[in-house]
Amino acid sequence: MMIDRSPRANVEIRDVGPRDGLQAESPVSVDTRTALINGLADAGLTDIEAVAFVSPKAVPQMAGAAEVMARIDRPAGVRFWGLVPNVRGAELAVDAGVDALTVTISACPVYNEKNINRTIEESVEAIAGVVEVADGRPVDAVLSCVFGSPYTGDEPTSAVPTLMEELRTRGVGRFTLADTTGMATPARIEAVISAVGADVGMHLHDTRGTALVNAWTALGLGVERFDTALGGLGGSPFAEGAGGNLATEDLVHVLRDAGSVPDIDLDALLALGPALADAVGHALPSRVMTHGPR
Amino acid sequence: MMIDRSPRANVEIRDVGPRDGLQAESPVSVDTRTALINGLADAGLTDIEAVAFVSPKAVPQMAGAAEVMARIDRPAGVRFWGLVPNVRGAELAVDAGVDALTVTISACPVYNEKNINRTIEESVEAIAGVVEVADGRPVDAVLSCVFGSPYTGDEPTSAVPTLMEELRTRGVGRFTLADTTGMATPARIEAVISAVGADVGMHLHDTRGTALVNAWTALGLGVERFDTALGGLGGSPFAEGAGGNLATEDLVHVLRDAGSVPDIDLDALLALGPALADAVGHALPSRVMTHGPR
Repeated sequence: MMIDRSPRANVEIRDVGPRDGLQAESPVSVDTRTALINGLADAGLTDIEAVAFVSPKAVPQMAGAAEVMARIDRPAGVRFWGLVPNVRGAELAVDAGVDALTVTISACPVYNEKNINRTIEESVEAIAGVVEVADGRPVDAVLSCVFGSPYTGDEPTSAVPTLMEELRTRGVGRFTLADTTGMATPARIEAVISAVGADVGMHLHDTRGTALVNAWTALGLGVERFDTALGGLGGSPFAEGAGGNLATEDLVHVLRDAGSVPDIDLDALLALGPALADAVGHALPSRVMTHGPR
Repeated sequence: MMIDRSPRANVEIRDVGPRDGLQAESPVSVDTRTALINGLADAGLTDIEAVAFVSPKAVPQMAGAAEVMARIDRPAGVRFWGLVPNVRGAELAVDAGVDALTVTISACPVYNEKNINRTIEESVEAIAGVVEVADGRPVDAVLSCVFGSPYTGDEPTSAVPTLMEELRTRGVGRFTLADTTGMATPARIEAVISAVGADVGMHLHDTRGTALVNAWTALGLGVERFDTALGGLGGSPFAEGAGGNLATEDLVHVLRDAGSVPDIDLDALLALGPALADAVGHALPSRVMTHGPR
């Protein structure tokens, strides 16, 4: 495949820390979540996965999603995403005023059943229902275990093109490929992008230290959408040994140095770190947060 | 520049943990150092920076270098490198039976003076002396601060081609470009390789989380020699906030998955981790050591 190293004008970073990051921590207050989301928007993030409309019993970290949506600032040009597991969640999300919705489905049927207690077919049906409720709002299907599964090894990768095609016929217009447990490597990023094209987002975890090299490899192949989390927060509560998300500031740091400048204020991002570390009660794993930018 | 992603048959990894790694820790015993070096050779490393012949007063971690050299196994096909600061060190190293020598000089004059108390010209003279004493053994000049200096910012980068040329005229046949304080990014790796060619080694630190992406970028540009340290140990005692070396196992892990297999046994490497963590008294920063290979 052709590798393109030229600067990019249109790299789109979606900070998923308020959802995927905080979901892996002990619950923090609505105030803290609101402040984090406002801070990310102020720093220039144009896309923020702010909330999930899921059972507060199963995921207490995401309780109060409507309250969070009601209290955050809503600056022009920022899309606030809500994760929804089903039609009921989508209805709540739309009522709460989200701009766009994420849904999840796994490329690994075993992971799908263990994670969300559904067959792939049931998940596809649920997503089709969400697309209807979304009523034209963007719906992004985040495919988990694309680069490997803790249950079925490398099997899921070959299922990705068919799964994407099926979801497309059900109205999904946008896809994100997730490396849920950090099994991607540059070689596997290349193989998958070769198969499905570069019009996808990447959602990368740093379990094995490969999040940034995988993002960079994808960028070189034309991918321009990345999920990240401030401070490298995250890890799936359902996946043993899953490391944090690619840190927003680590990606912005190398992009900026390559002349690909999403309009994000790195210093403003870093200034959000201490309050976030304080809220979650531990140091953030991001290296740029720890040592500062070059 | 052309990017080549094909598998490589000749990637050469030099584990510098016994020297650059342990130098950043409280001193460990000769026994521990000997066991680490033997373990690395057993795991398949063909190049190991085992010792430094420096003042035991200034660098107590490297005391007993001759004893280490006398006690390690010397399997065929493994080169044991010794770092030497001057002619006297080179004489000791040759007497102790090292196969090859590393010398250091900085692309940043200020760093050179603060680190080794010499002007660049004095360092060049010292290295010329070492080359003579080496008597045909490989001498690798490790250039520090190639991608930026904590004292002079990006200035040192432009000095690299001239410094290399001067050292070549003094008999140095091999060069390693060091990112001493983690200021390299993929864009800077490309710029430097464009200027000096790919027949260099890379010595990368993970201060800002970029060690692996920088190595991968260099590999794609034709570089085939990398300094690493088991467990990601390291950090310069002279450089504020310097993170550990690129972890040997993190590099081997992605190389192996790309079909570029240096003949290194990843499981054997990982098996060395617990004893090393125990010796240095803290967890090792490597992600693959922490979470295991994919």
